[in-house]
Order: sequence, then structure tokens, then C-alpha cells
Amino acid sequence: MPSLPDMMTPSLDEMTRNVLPGGAHAPAPDANQAALFETLLRYGDNALILGHRVSEWCGHGPALEEDIALANQALDLIGQCQLWLGLAAEVEGGGRTADQLAYLRDVSAFRNTLLVERPNGDFGQTLMRQFLFDAYHSELMLALKASTDPRVAEIAAKTGKEVAYHLERSADLVIRLGDGSEESNARMQKALNGLFSYTGELFMDDDADKVVAEAGIAPLPSSLKPAWETTICEVLAEATLDYPADVYMHKGGRKGLHSEYLGFILAEMQFLQRAYPGANW
Amino acid sequence: MPSLPDMMTPSLDEMTRNVLPGGAHAPAPDANQAALFETLLRYGDNALILGHRVSEWCGHGPALEEDIALANQALDLIGQCQLWLGLAAEVEGGGRTADQLAYLRDVSAFRNTLLVERPNGDFGQTLMRQFLFDAYHSELMLALKASTDPRVAEIAAKTGKEVAYHLERSADLVIRLGDGSEESNARMQKALNGLFSYTGELFMDDDADKVVAEAGIAPLPSSLKPAWETTICEVLAEATLDYPADVYMHKGGRKGLHSEYLGFILAEMQFLQRAYPGANW
Repeated sequence: MPSLPDMMTPSLDEMTRNVLPGGAHAPAPDANQAALFETLLRYGDNALILGHRVSEWCGHGPALEEDIALANQALDLIGQCQLWLGLAAEVEGGGRTADQLAYLRDVSAFRNTLLVERPNGDFGQTLMRQFLFDAYHSELMLALKASTDPRVAEIAAKTGKEVAYHLERSADLVIRLGDGSEESNARMQKALNGLFSYTGELFMDDDADKVVAEAGIAPLPSSLKPAWETTICEVLAEATLDYPADVYMHKGGRKGLHSEYLGFILAEMQFLQRAYPGANW
Repeated sequence: MPSLPDMMTPSLDEMTRNVLPGGAHAPAPDANQAALFETLLRYGDNALILGHRVSEWCGHGPALEEDIALANQALDLIGQCQLWLGLAAEVEGGGRTADQLAYLRDVSAFRNTLLVERPNGDFGQTLMRQFLFDAYHSELMLALKASTDPRVAEIAAKTGKEVAYHLERSADLVIRLGDGSEESNARMQKALNGLFSYTGELFMDDDADKVVAEAGIAPLPSSLKPAWETTICEVLAEATLDYPADVYMHKGGRKGLHSEYLGFILAEMQFLQRAYPGANW
């Protein structure tokens, strides 16, 4: 799908192509609803868990400006999650809301990749995780803008701008710290080496991916890899960091097999809704 | 109360003194039930939160033997908590169980001291926290064995042996690490300096303490301080560690005003009962 000629937001005509006479949105005709639901959970859960991780920096950033930038980024991601899980709930059609999907599922029902649940570590590690994810995320949003499902295309168009800015920022900081002092270079290389084995899962295709890709709703994850690698190689070269070679790739998150970290994240994140069910502002 | 002549378990006669004709236990005649409930929560919550903290070491101890010892100690404390909160539930008489008190109260309803919710830090810090608490805890159990409330005296007699062993172990390790290498000495001194300001709260008396002390149910916290100080001074001297002087003392935990740490502890500890209400083995 990244090779499709037009990566722009679909025209109004395209946007309304799947609107039923009654005004309700129908899923793209050929899509298997379960596969679409699964895919939307993956997008939403990546944004939710990474957003939660980044929010842990609030009040702990290395400089005021960075603290605010990180908090803003966390908010962007939570906002994106709301859109994806909102659509997931609509596709599921079982009466669950985005909030219920976020706060009332347990570990094995989460579909985020292992990369986003990795611990923050130091500022360098947080940035490296962000950069590796942003480079994937921006390619994904670019491809999703051409989705045959106008609801998906619309969310991608909306959030794509934020994601492009996230990538600009994280790439810039990876370069500054990688090509910085001896200490900052060593830390960035260590962060890269530690995190790289969690990037493989971003580009693995499974049955759900194939179903939505065939319907033109979303790109095959594997199709995003070449562009991702180009970005990574360029930025790492400028940052004077070594691209890790022949790394074993962990997987499981996208199928609900998570590291121990996710349970701790959910315990904290879901406490309020678990302790005070249905609590509202 | 530590000056009472007989610190042994009360006789069977004393044990049954407060048993009502119907066989149900009545509280000691003069006790204000609310003050007793508050006191029992404090005992139970100290054991519960410290037990949870120590359990965090499971699988992370610096040596297999220590790992098992820490896990055992955590189990002792959770067991003690069960006895204290069980009695608290009985005194409250509102139908809540020990489990419900442990898993369904939120932060401000917890009555543990701030000391036990301090983070584990390194092995030395965990040990120092344990030692400072054990030295207090063992004096408390010794005094409680002479309680006019036979239910309290019985729990104190049962758990006093465990607590005495905890103190023996933590004092021994504080001495070995304090009087060890330059590195271990520095770490123990740092741990002591960081934790000492949380010990003052252990010995502060409030209205609830006065009520139960007047009824002879429990000692005034302040009355335990001289013996605690003697233990601390002796062990620190042998460990070649400096007793911190003129330290500002934090307080609040015993009244429900907690550090941010307790919320994270509860989120983790209560997840299962919050997510699966009423779940049972």
C-alpha cells in the first residue's frame, strides 16, 4: 500500500463511498469485521500504552521544556487512542465504548506491540523507543490515509500531522544525543541495542493483517519496513550510532502475549475505573 | 506498658475474661470501639504494606538464600495482617472481612505509617527499613502480649515470635553490611539517613492511642521509644554507622495522609479483586 500513487486524504466522494443510505457508516464491503476490530485494537492499544508510558515522565523531565513536550506527546497519543478505540467499539457493535475497551480489558486482551510497553529507562531510552516507533507510525499513517474505509482514512489524516511532528522531534533529539558527548552517545547506543529486538514485531503479517490488506483498509505491516529502514539508517548515520545487526526479534504483543510490564501498567492505568466502576467527570 | 511486670502470654483465665456468656468475644469493657478499630487497622496495614513491599523482591534477591528469606518474611507479614485485619473486621461488626479491608479500601482509608511504604531501593535500603521497623514492631508485640483484650494478646503472642526472629535477622545483616566494605558501609549509612525521618511517626500518640492505652489494650506509641532507641543505638554502633541527629520527622500515614507510593502499591495489590470482584481460589 505505501506504493499506491495517491497518499493524500481521500476525496469527499471517496469519504462517503461507504455511507449507507440511512447515514450510518458501513465497514468497507469486503472486510472481515473481526479482522478490522483486531487491527483497530492494535492501533489504539499502541497509542494508549505508549501514551501511558510517556505520561510517566510528567514532572520528571530533564528540563522544563522537555517535560512539557513529553506531556504533550502523551496527550496526543491518548487522543489518537480515543479515535482508534472509538472506531473499534463501533465496528465491534456490542455496546462497549472506547473507555470500556481501554479500562476494562485485562492483559491478554491487549494488542499493542511489546516495544511500547518497554520501560522508560533514562531520557535517552525513552527517546529511542519513541523514535523507533514514530518512524513506523508515520509510515503507517501515511498509508492509512489511502484506506478504502473512510473512517480509517479520516483518523489517519487527522493524527498523521501529529505523528509526523513526533518523528521530526524524536529523530532530531536522537541525532543531537547520539552525535553529542561520549556519555550521551554511549547511552543512545545502549538504548538502541536494548530496544531493537522489539522492532521486528511491527512488521510481521498475520491473518488479520492479510484480511484488512486485501480489502484495501490497511497496509500489510511488512510493506512498511523498507521505508522504516531507510529512515532509521539515515538518522542513525547522522547520529553516529551503529545499526544493530542480526538481532533476535521478540514477538507476541499483537496477539496478546505480553511482557510482565503490561500488567503493572494496566494495574495503575485502570485503578480508577476498577475501584469506582463507571466513575465520570 | 513496656514497664508492666509480666510480658508473657496472659493465662487462660485472663484469655477468657472477656468472653461473653454466649461465647462471643466482647471488646475490653472500657474500650472505645472506634479507637480499637483504628488501632487494629494501623497494626494490620503496617504488616500488609510492608509485606507487599518485601514481596516485590521475590525473584530479585541478591542470592538464592536471601531471596527465599525475603519471601518468607513477606509471607509472615501478610499472615500477621490477616490476623489484625480479621480482628478489626470483627470489632467493626459491619460485615466486612479481612480480605475486603485489604483489597477494597482506597489510599486515604489506609492507616500504615509512611516508613513501610518507602520504596525498596537497593538490598541495603530494604534491610535498613526492615530493621528500623522490626525494632519497633518487636517492642510493640512484647507490650501487646499483656493487653487486657485477650484477642489482641493472643495475636501478639502468636506473631511475636516471628517478629523477634525478623529483628534478629535484620539487625544481624545491618551489622554485617554496615561493618563490611567501604561500599556497603556507605550504602547502609545512606539508607539510614534517608529512612530515619520516617521513624518519628511510629512513636506519636493521638486520641485513638490514648483511648486504647487507658483501657490497657495497647501501649502508647511514645512509651515504646526508649527501648527502640536502645536497640537502634546498640546495633548502629556495632555496624559502625552514625545515628542521624536532629532529623525532621514526616508524619501522616497513621491518619490516612500518604505519600504517592501507596497509590501505586494499592493499584498493583488490589488489581485482582478490583478487576474480578469477589474472585476466590
